[in-house]
Amino acid sequence: MTTPQTDTAPTQGHAANQVLSVDAMGGDKGPATVVAGLSAFLRDRPAAHAILHGPKAELEPLVAKHGIAERVTIHDAADVVKMTDKPSHVLRNGKTTSMWSAIEAVRNRQAAVAISCGNTGGLMAMSMLRLRKAEGVNRPAIACLWPSRNPSGFNVMLDAGADIRADQDDLLTYALMGASYARNGLDIARPRVGLLNVGTEEHKGRAELKVAHELIGNAAIIGDFDYVGFVEGGDLPSNKVDVIVTDGFTGNVALKTGEGTATLISELLRGALMKNPWSMFGAVLAGGSLRALRKRIDPRRVNGGVFLGLNQTVIKSHGGADETGVAAALHLAYRLAESGFSDKLAARVASAASLAQDASTASGTDSSETKTGK
Amino acid sequence: MTTPQTDTAPTQGHAANQVLSVDAMGGDKGPATVVAGLSAFLRDRPAAHAILHGPKAELEPLVAKHGIAERVTIHDAADVVKMTDKPSHVLRNGKTTSMWSAIEAVRNRQAAVAISCGNTGGLMAMSMLRLRKAEGVNRPAIACLWPSRNPSGFNVMLDAGADIRADQDDLLTYALMGASYARNGLDIARPRVGLLNVGTEEHKGRAELKVAHELIGNAAIIGDFDYVGFVEGGDLPSNKVDVIVTDGFTGNVALKTGEGTATLISELLRGALMKNPWSMFGAVLAGGSLRALRKRIDPRRVNGGVFLGLNQTVIKSHGGADETGVAAALHLAYRLAESGFSDKLAARVASAASLAQDASTASGTDSSETKTGK
Repeated sequence: MTTPQTDTAPTQGHAANQVLSVDAMGGDKGPATVVAGLSAFLRDRPAAHAILHGPKAELEPLVAKHGIAERVTIHDAADVVKMTDKPSHVLRNGKTTSMWSAIEAVRNRQAAVAISCGNTGGLMAMSMLRLRKAEGVNRPAIACLWPSRNPSGFNVMLDAGADIRADQDDLLTYALMGASYARNGLDIARPRVGLLNVGTEEHKGRAELKVAHELIGNAAIIGDFDYVGFVEGGDLPSNKVDVIVTDGFTGNVALKTGEGTATLISELLRGALMKNPWSMFGAVLAGGSLRALRKRIDPRRVNGGVFLGLNQTVIKSHGGADETGVAAALHLAYRLAESGFSDKLAARVASAASLAQDASTASGTDSSETKTGK
Repeated sequence: MTTPQTDTAPTQGHAANQVLSVDAMGGDKGPATVVAGLSAFLRDRPAAHAILHGPKAELEPLVAKHGIAERVTIHDAADVVKMTDKPSHVLRNGKTTSMWSAIEAVRNRQAAVAISCGNTGGLMAMSMLRLRKAEGVNRPAIACLWPSRNPSGFNVMLDAGADIRADQDDLLTYALMGASYARNGLDIARPRVGLLNVGTEEHKGRAELKVAHELIGNAAIIGDFDYVGFVEGGDLPSNKVDVIVTDGFTGNVALKTGEGTATLISELLRGALMKNPWSMFGAVLAGGSLRALRKRIDPRRVNGGVFLGLNQTVIKSHGGADETGVAAALHLAYRLAESGFSDKLAARVASAASLAQDASTASGTDSSETKTGK
């Protein structure tokens, strides 16, 4: 099932895979921060171009101020999706918003990836409606980056909260999508995939996890990844896995728990270093190294939840992202855009789904039942 | 339903609420570490006494070496529950183990609280079999302490992994038990209880969470706590809540995620401070403050998962706990023992369960259905 697409030419002669569609509105800090982040990103990526969505009268002066007018096309959109709007409200009343406009630009293939700091539920609902689920995907997922001991500095975890449920087939799809994302977003040729559980022994965990354990193991060849089996919460930052698969409820709690813990420790560290003159002097001497550490674990630099499983790619940036955070999300988007990620992902999931279907029809195992039962 | 109890006199004339029952075996570091931790604990608590369980020939010299022989009674037990033993195996073959012996001592009221570093699944299975679930409790839970911004330095989270499931009634029971534990273990007169979810808005989350939200809100008066509503993963270390209620799957993942994140940051911090001579000199100057910080977030000092919902209290110490960790678990156990926690908790849950039953029978709401349906 493919969505009908308008074959609009890429904006202003740019290859579509160098154009990003940026929702200027909806972030906690307003469009000035988004434009500042965009400007920082464009400085680092000379070939990049952006379509910026929001009220033209408000955006034009901001773009002019940063001197990026010839690399930015503004699509005028009068309205804004509010953080408090429910997804159902957004779908009914959202057509004139900057978020809708941002999604339309990727739907029309004017840009390769859409980025928004707005309301997650609204963005997901609108993306599902306009971009449609890719073939073989039942529940799309949000993939996030997790600071880790791996050479790339990050692991991928999904689902970080697109859906509060996931059955065994969804978890298999997440494994395939996560591996594809790690390959294209983090340059890991053969990602190692793990399934999050309360223990690494085979008999542990909920029933659907035991079935998913088998399904993912069987799909490793098709998906071009290594399956490392069950992993635990403590493995999220580890270097024994690149992609961690879980349902959106657990993933969301884990993500916020990790962020909350990092923030608490940073605060305590700051307090410890300001405790007395010796520690303050020590902090000054160690300042460069400590700043490098803070940068490493800074949630703003890990900014960007990627919606996977739609026909095009959408990136949700933190609502509270500052200029640095917005630029980080744009860099990630550009990397995925350049690699032709959306099409590669769709091809991978579709071929795996059809192969899995064949396999389950032939073998008549448990997994075939749950598959054909859908 | 009360378990039949032998009315054995407290060991050697000590009040039972000053006697702890300590499994010397089953930890990764062996009995020498447990006895060293016990010795450190006894130095700080002059009125305390311990019953130590394990092979007498092995334990006697250790106890003598630390000069604590007159404050420790050894109960000879030849066998040890292994970390790899499955719960079913432990129940069939465990009668001669030190773990079984440690539980029997609290069952017989010779000691108030049992502590073990052994296999969690085995300890929970054995505790359920020998101590029985308290009246009104369907699923017992493991409560853990979470470093937080609260004045006490900790929040309570449960279930940390006793069971992988929890329905709305279980979550209500957890709220009551967690509040009672916070009162007796952390000296918080009126604990604030929150229910873990993927967002704080009322419409978010799984169906059973919405029902539990209502049940816990209604039970706040009976349970003598304040209900703050839904909380998120980022609130686990916050000072807006004292007790966080969740199912054992989510709780276990959150706990291990928090520990893993803290460990990663500690490693990175150490690396940052060893980076160059300036930062190393800085680290020396700031050393005292940094050590205080490390102590604050050290998982060993937060050691001790408390099994709640049985007729007596059992504490699971980390398998890898060192002397400091064992002593921390013993201090927590002693605090709960002295406060008469087990009896207070049982009374609170039983009265709440019967009141809730009355209320649901009278009102015929959704919650009454799910209650009577059990």
